[in-house]
Amino acid sequence: MDMSKPAIAVIGCGLIGESWSALFLAHGYEVHAWDPDVQVRGRLAERLQRPLAQLATLYPKNTVPGRLRVHDTLAEAVARADLVQENAPERVPLKRALYSEIEGVTPSSAIIASSSSAFTWSQLSTEMHTPGRLITAHPFNPPHLVPLVELYGVDPEALGRADAIYRDIHRETVRLKKEAIGHIANRLASALWREAVHLVAEGIADVTDIDAALVNGPGLRWSVIGAHMVYHLAGGEGGIEHYLDHLGPSQERRWEALGSPRLTQEVCAQLIAGIAEEAAGRSVAELERARDARLIRMIQARRDEV
Amino acid sequence: MDMSKPAIAVIGCGLIGESWSALFLAHGYEVHAWDPDVQVRGRLAERLQRPLAQLATLYPKNTVPGRLRVHDTLAEAVARADLVQENAPERVPLKRALYSEIEGVTPSSAIIASSSSAFTWSQLSTEMHTPGRLITAHPFNPPHLVPLVELYGVDPEALGRADAIYRDIHRETVRLKKEAIGHIANRLASALWREAVHLVAEGIADVTDIDAALVNGPGLRWSVIGAHMVYHLAGGEGGIEHYLDHLGPSQERRWEALGSPRLTQEVCAQLIAGIAEEAAGRSVAELERARDARLIRMIQARRDEV
Repeated sequence: MDMSKPAIAVIGCGLIGESWSALFLAHGYEVHAWDPDVQVRGRLAERLQRPLAQLATLYPKNTVPGRLRVHDTLAEAVARADLVQENAPERVPLKRALYSEIEGVTPSSAIIASSSSAFTWSQLSTEMHTPGRLITAHPFNPPHLVPLVELYGVDPEALGRADAIYRDIHRETVRLKKEAIGHIANRLASALWREAVHLVAEGIADVTDIDAALVNGPGLRWSVIGAHMVYHLAGGEGGIEHYLDHLGPSQERRWEALGSPRLTQEVCAQLIAGIAEEAAGRSVAELERARDARLIRMIQARRDEV
Repeated sequence: MDMSKPAIAVIGCGLIGESWSALFLAHGYEVHAWDPDVQVRGRLAERLQRPLAQLATLYPKNTVPGRLRVHDTLAEAVARADLVQENAPERVPLKRALYSEIEGVTPSSAIIASSSSAFTWSQLSTEMHTPGRLITAHPFNPPHLVPLVELYGVDPEALGRADAIYRDIHRETVRLKKEAIGHIANRLASALWREAVHLVAEGIADVTDIDAALVNGPGLRWSVIGAHMVYHLAGGEGGIEHYLDHLGPSQERRWEALGSPRLTQEVCAQLIAGIAEEAAGRSVAELERARDARLIRMIQARRDEV
């Protein structure tokens, strides 16, 4: 363990807390973990074995392991933290109460970072005495593999310190200039899924074919270049300016033709039947293992730049 | 060249025709190419060098090269074709006229496959005597690297034969059950980009950060699993059924909160400025080379399954 690294508190040790713990440990950090459920925190060290093994594959040069300390109280876990990563269930009153408690027992310089997917900084910070210490730092599932962390906060100094820590553990951070429910990535994902559901609801294609089209088409391409940059390259020599001049109107027409499905019983039944066909007997755990193995290879391939 | 392979005619030798030609040649097919522009067809062999070199990297086992024959007339190019891949500019009258001409001079068993992105089979087939021979076979840019081909047609036998040829050249085909403007992939891409433009228009994030969020988050994940399957895994043990029961309503609320931007002058100016920042001085050609190099590595990594 590298004692010069900031000390991390991980509060809430479900799937997201487990991922954060593994990431910090794999990069030589001291992790102080706490969960209100004594069984959940008791099994954390054991549950970390799989993500830690995956991270050892991804970051073979990290030879100085961190140290995990599981605490019996929240106050102990955060007492000497530089960064508190909060991964409580998505309930606003619960999170607000946690921050009030943490504020009183952690160093005044400690950053409190919420992994919240569903709520914004403004919704979470209202009852804090020192709201500048709160930031949202939203990871993307599975968080120990997918590098994205979306940041929002009001104190540039706190944001800068947190950003440096996340980059040190190989996260790719982005900044929101204005907060938004769903941050950036889940809004994009939600917009795409709406159309994917529309295609099923309208009988245009099967779930399996829609997923295959995404994985072998735009998804593959978006693992390499972003959606805006795609249209810059689509404009040829003239770039995005040429594209917008010549094809902007046809994009607007296409937007108007996109669907607005509802998740009715019938549509849900189609989605469930379609997934059963695509899963072809593989369990969720098997599908997750396959996803993780592929993700690890993709991340390695992307990193091996010439 | 493998003489047992179907003969391919590539009609229209712009970027898409160039990619198709390279793909078929790299897999040992005889390609009969024609373009109405004598300069375009004259330079085809030279332009094929770059995509052929990229394909040699991707498919090192393909040691029997195909043969390119560039013809001076459409009739000659299609005279002995088993599959005619049409890549004319996106103008319906032009394409309809082409099909009428091709129908008269190609074997009656030949499949006529349109690469059209903008139009549907119904729009394209109206003036044909034998419309069952027409299929839409839409590739995804850059088509010699991105494996997706989206198929629609009305004759299952023709579709099946075309599908087998595309799979032989390492394309991943999907079938539309009902035709739709934009097929599957461009509808999904369009839906996502609408929200990406909304985030810029609302000042929530910069173009660079939105692209980075996509590439390091959902884009990376969608190169590995599809959008529907994501929600199956998000449901844990209970899968998609559990997800829809518990989080379906919150997805519907999120859909309602998505944006409906317009490509106003102001929004276009923001997009152009944002791309300039993201491109950071790199030309479109440089950005394309970087994209292709990364795509090749990603495709290799995905293929190297354990």
